[in-house]
Amino acid sequence: MSKIRIGIVGYGNLGRGVEAAIGQQKDMSLEAIFTRRDPASLNVSGVVVDSIDNIENYVSKIDVMILCGGSAKDLPVQSPAVLENFCIVDSFDTHAKIPAHFARLDEVGKRTGNLGLLSSGWDPGIFSMMRILFESIAPDGETYTFWGKGVSQGHSDAIRQIEGVKNAVQYTIPREDALEAVRSGVRPDLSTKDKHLRECFVALEEGADADDIIRQIKTMPNYFADYETIVHIVTEEYLAQEHNELPHGGIVTRTANSAKYNNFMMEFNLKLDSNPEFTGSVLGAYARAVYRMNEEGKTGAITVFDVPLSAINPASPEEQRERML
Amino acid sequence: MSKIRIGIVGYGNLGRGVEAAIGQQKDMSLEAIFTRRDPASLNVSGVVVDSIDNIENYVSKIDVMILCGGSAKDLPVQSPAVLENFCIVDSFDTHAKIPAHFARLDEVGKRTGNLGLLSSGWDPGIFSMMRILFESIAPDGETYTFWGKGVSQGHSDAIRQIEGVKNAVQYTIPREDALEAVRSGVRPDLSTKDKHLRECFVALEEGADADDIIRQIKTMPNYFADYETIVHIVTEEYLAQEHNELPHGGIVTRTANSAKYNNFMMEFNLKLDSNPEFTGSVLGAYARAVYRMNEEGKTGAITVFDVPLSAINPASPEEQRERML
Repeated sequence: MSKIRIGIVGYGNLGRGVEAAIGQQKDMSLEAIFTRRDPASLNVSGVVVDSIDNIENYVSKIDVMILCGGSAKDLPVQSPAVLENFCIVDSFDTHAKIPAHFARLDEVGKRTGNLGLLSSGWDPGIFSMMRILFESIAPDGETYTFWGKGVSQGHSDAIRQIEGVKNAVQYTIPREDALEAVRSGVRPDLSTKDKHLRECFVALEEGADADDIIRQIKTMPNYFADYETIVHIVTEEYLAQEHNELPHGGIVTRTANSAKYNNFMMEFNLKLDSNPEFTGSVLGAYARAVYRMNEEGKTGAITVFDVPLSAINPASPEEQRERML
Repeated sequence: MSKIRIGIVGYGNLGRGVEAAIGQQKDMSLEAIFTRRDPASLNVSGVVVDSIDNIENYVSKIDVMILCGGSAKDLPVQSPAVLENFCIVDSFDTHAKIPAHFARLDEVGKRTGNLGLLSSGWDPGIFSMMRILFESIAPDGETYTFWGKGVSQGHSDAIRQIEGVKNAVQYTIPREDALEAVRSGVRPDLSTKDKHLRECFVALEEGADADDIIRQIKTMPNYFADYETIVHIVTEEYLAQEHNELPHGGIVTRTANSAKYNNFMMEFNLKLDSNPEFTGSVLGAYARAVYRMNEEGKTGAITVFDVPLSAINPASPEEQRERML
């Protein structure tokens, strides 16, 4: 069996996560990693590293490119550009801009004969699949998404911007009281701040005013002011030792009822020691589907909603039914 | 918008569950119920009831037939027979016989231009989808399925066969110790009996020997002998009042790790006050997909693995992405 040949575009946390994931998929091979940096500067062994400027040289050598850049600046440019010559998977997660990103990829893919799957990962991605599955089965109900416990890079960065802060890690944590209310079936009306609390571990510069920094964090608009926020002042060493991982996870839950008022509760729960490695694993599995669906003639843009589960699994349809149905 | 026209074949617990479910789906209408009994004997209002012998008269009037018979005797005969003239959905759950059932439906469907989706419901069905999804993303791991807490009709029936038993209800219950071991990530080797215990509520005939009946239950081969089994002797009235519902549910959980030995835990949890009403809801949602996929030219046999989630949801692709991605 010839393997599905994968390329990685962008080699940060997510790119390394995809690299690890492809190594676990027996029907895939990682052919090359593309970077905007000096290729020689990457600490990678056993795989070709090349400049993103040379990517067109790989048209006959790579089946699917997995884009690992950021949603703010990288993917809006890179995804359509790479789709000109390759099938792609990306993890675009700026929700309000998905329609424009979809339209752009759909145009490029249909014109070039390539297939692009956007907004894969765990949210958007696996969590989205749970939301649509649950609602389709049980239309009279309410779906709730909780994020965490996990590190929010955006919130950690926001704390680091405060003068006097040396380093910071912020965890988003589902509120137990909100989870309990949801699971009880009463269908509470909950905003994001009602569902989550924010716990911050902050290391200070010498001489910084701890009380003032705690006040600045707790009153920061958008990020913290509306939330229950807990701040711990810790040493830089403690932060580096105890909070240097990127765990994440969350819960999608729906409480619904039948026409006869019997309750249905469906809940999906994710606990990840490494957010980028799991996201990379999802992108890897969906690269398989993109390859297969493009082989069958599908072009343009798709999301996880358009992919049958048989397409993301390496086993034959017979084995899938035998072992997993 | 014209509605998807649904027929129900078989009007037991599951047939009534489908009837309730179709009432919640705004893009579907229940056109007729077919039965082997005297149609006048069914307690149904607002919908045509006809003999299953007249089903061919409805070829131009019904888009998808939902088969609600049993897997042992009804579906192996009814599913291929009805597929001769209609697209169908069934809940065939005799796992060892799925390949033969699939092959039979595939032959009929491809010959007639109809599409048949077999083995839908929650297990096989939604649970199967979780198993294939989890394994596809994280191949280095172990998936565990727990059933319950819920009523097992087969085990309840087995108790009722014992002389001196008037009525009985048996609950299958996941063992907390097994769940804990699984969630800890150690990947224990667990058989069905290691994962579940069995709790029985039994009403006796007058003069029956309770101790002897408890012994007969606990030592019954295949059903109870290998399990931790708890038996409560209760009155017939108590059984009728407290144990007259058909709740069910269960858990599919996978513990896995990345190539860098970070742990991933994915878990799906289902709690149903009514097993047949939820199963009926799943069959209803998948009837939508069968209708749409057949309209697009798909024929033969499929399972839930072959259906993209977009096809089971009534919203437009744009609304699906906007609201659920």
